[in-house]
Amino acid sequence: VGDNLGRMTRAIETALGRSDVVILTGGLGPTPDDITREAVAAAVGRRLVRHDDLVAELRAFFERRDRAMPEQNLQQADLPEGAKAIQPEGTAPGFYLHHSSGLVIALPGVPWEMENMMTKTVIPLLRARAGDAVTVSKEVMVVGLGESHTHELISDLVDAQTNPTIAYLAGHGLVRVRLTSKARDVQRALELIDPVEEEIRKRLGGAAVIGHGSSLAEIVGELLRSREESAATAESLTGGLIGAELTKLGGASDFFLGSVVAYTNDVKGKVLGVSRDALTGPGAVSDDVAAQMAEGAAALFGADLGISATGVAGPAPHDGKPVGTIFVGAAYGGRTETRRVQGYGDRDNVRGMAVTSALDLARRAVQGRP
Amino acid sequence: VGDNLGRMTRAIETALGRSDVVILTGGLGPTPDDITREAVAAAVGRRLVRHDDLVAELRAFFERRDRAMPEQNLQQADLPEGAKAIQPEGTAPGFYLHHSSGLVIALPGVPWEMENMMTKTVIPLLRARAGDAVTVSKEVMVVGLGESHTHELISDLVDAQTNPTIAYLAGHGLVRVRLTSKARDVQRALELIDPVEEEIRKRLGGAAVIGHGSSLAEIVGELLRSREESAATAESLTGGLIGAELTKLGGASDFFLGSVVAYTNDVKGKVLGVSRDALTGPGAVSDDVAAQMAEGAAALFGADLGISATGVAGPAPHDGKPVGTIFVGAAYGGRTETRRVQGYGDRDNVRGMAVTSALDLARRAVQGRP
Repeated sequence: VGDNLGRMTRAIETALGRSDVVILTGGLGPTPDDITREAVAAAVGRRLVRHDDLVAELRAFFERRDRAMPEQNLQQADLPEGAKAIQPEGTAPGFYLHHSSGLVIALPGVPWEMENMMTKTVIPLLRARAGDAVTVSKEVMVVGLGESHTHELISDLVDAQTNPTIAYLAGHGLVRVRLTSKARDVQRALELIDPVEEEIRKRLGGAAVIGHGSSLAEIVGELLRSREESAATAESLTGGLIGAELTKLGGASDFFLGSVVAYTNDVKGKVLGVSRDALTGPGAVSDDVAAQMAEGAAALFGADLGISATGVAGPAPHDGKPVGTIFVGAAYGGRTETRRVQGYGDRDNVRGMAVTSALDLARRAVQGRP
Repeated sequence: VGDNLGRMTRAIETALGRSDVVILTGGLGPTPDDITREAVAAAVGRRLVRHDDLVAELRAFFERRDRAMPEQNLQQADLPEGAKAIQPEGTAPGFYLHHSSGLVIALPGVPWEMENMMTKTVIPLLRARAGDAVTVSKEVMVVGLGESHTHELISDLVDAQTNPTIAYLAGHGLVRVRLTSKARDVQRALELIDPVEEEIRKRLGGAAVIGHGSSLAEIVGELLRSREESAATAESLTGGLIGAELTKLGGASDFFLGSVVAYTNDVKGKVLGVSRDALTGPGAVSDDVAAQMAEGAAALFGADLGISATGVAGPAPHDGKPVGTIFVGAAYGGRTETRRVQGYGDRDNVRGMAVTSALDLARRAVQGRP
């Protein structure tokens, strides 16, 4: 909804008319286009009230940073009458209020502020409201089968689903099969999910990812951490994305040593030690070069696991290879595996598929499941 | 809206009741939870019709990949009566249909498929519908001032806005001030924007980013391309994100040579040549080390510009430095500049702020505006 008081007020009224809980994000900042506070007040027919404790917190926030607070920022301390403030993560307090049988929750639009408020305040609030019921989800990650082929293998389970329900989420060469169940407690919810998950894993075989974590990077990290081993990457078309993905979660320095992004043949040879023969023969986009890049990264950084990706991200073909050509490699325990993957879609999707393929090959290498 | 036929149908009816154009994304895939086609048909009271040309295209897509087509996929060839198909980008055709005075457009949920259809089909469709009016936007990027301080400097312009309108979009240490105007043609729309943009740039001074491109990475890339110069990066807390950002757009090999991600002191010393004195004295998170990393990257890759970032992404302090401490560096033309930035928020935001700061410092170095 645009920053328009009338349209926003009507949208909140409509939402309250059909839903028990309405969660809003954005429009809680200090500028005049931040009108969520006013719109909620108008939709529930209450006036705005200034909160002295919020004023004090706003002033303290700026004092800690040794900066003067613009007077305009005080509007962030105004909440609809009866609303409870949610502790600000940046400078914007969130709030919630009960209105007849409904609940309106307003959160900032800045993603990390919103996410922290969701975790600390909103989820406990919703859980309390839900009473005796819990909803639990587990995911099976699938690499190497498309969404439609994944579905073919488990369609009878999806058709028969009631509790748990089964949904797909696909992107960057990864399909997530999400199982969601409702029950009186987590233990019972998991008892509903577990046999269905087991059957799905049996059907999908080696394409179903095994490991602890909600992303391939987390699984690779956990494997290495538990073995007290380390990883390094050598990247070309991904430009640094594999290293960025491996270091997304805190504590990555337990297992991650570093990356070389080698965007030219010169760097692949000089820094990573890829042979001139491989670069001029099969070429920079080949399984030979992917293998030597993985080995070169492991050797340069002294890592137990070397991970590599080379390919053509597009938009134009490169070195005679069509857009979407991807080779990934993993050097581990004296063996080097490579895999060829046909990427599709735009540059972003091809690069994302290369990250997925490289991390999945690395997982298989460490787990001994090539 | 969840994958529920009743709820989805009502949502489409509601949207058509209040808007001229309704754009839907998702639910056009081959699995049973893909029910957007049915929901649109129900909402406008028409039946689904199988399109033989779409059937042929679906079969051809699978034949090109040498794979059997699951029968279930044929549902993707069923569209509401009277709908026009939008050429599939993957396997999912989109479609649009006119209903009384409204227009319903259904696009796939896969981001790159949706984006390509938006560009090729939907935007021309909307433009034709808009007739004689065009809407044009330009952005002023701001680094080093928060959203509220940016607003303080230009609040009178924002208050007086009618055409162009002015809006803010902030994240990862970057504020975008977006000016949007409506006029009969692009030329006239720009004539409305230009004087306001000029005034905003005057008020914001050095904090307003100068250059050609819609991201800092694009601006740095364009600067280097026009000078036939090259860049390399040395990264620590960002894990590869700066390189990934510089290679996001096609043609990056014109100016980008590579990166070293040095996640340990050992690698900073061995691969990038950072001195033991700097690592044991000021420490890995310091302006000395940021400077030597930038110089080391330029030297290792033979690049004209070396860009670096070191810092503490969190969640825990490191080496006695608090979470959010960031030092970035740029080595260019015989000079090395560094900057200290105080990051805030979660790990993802701190890393994003480091990317923004490093690329902005690099831009200033090349433009000679330190």
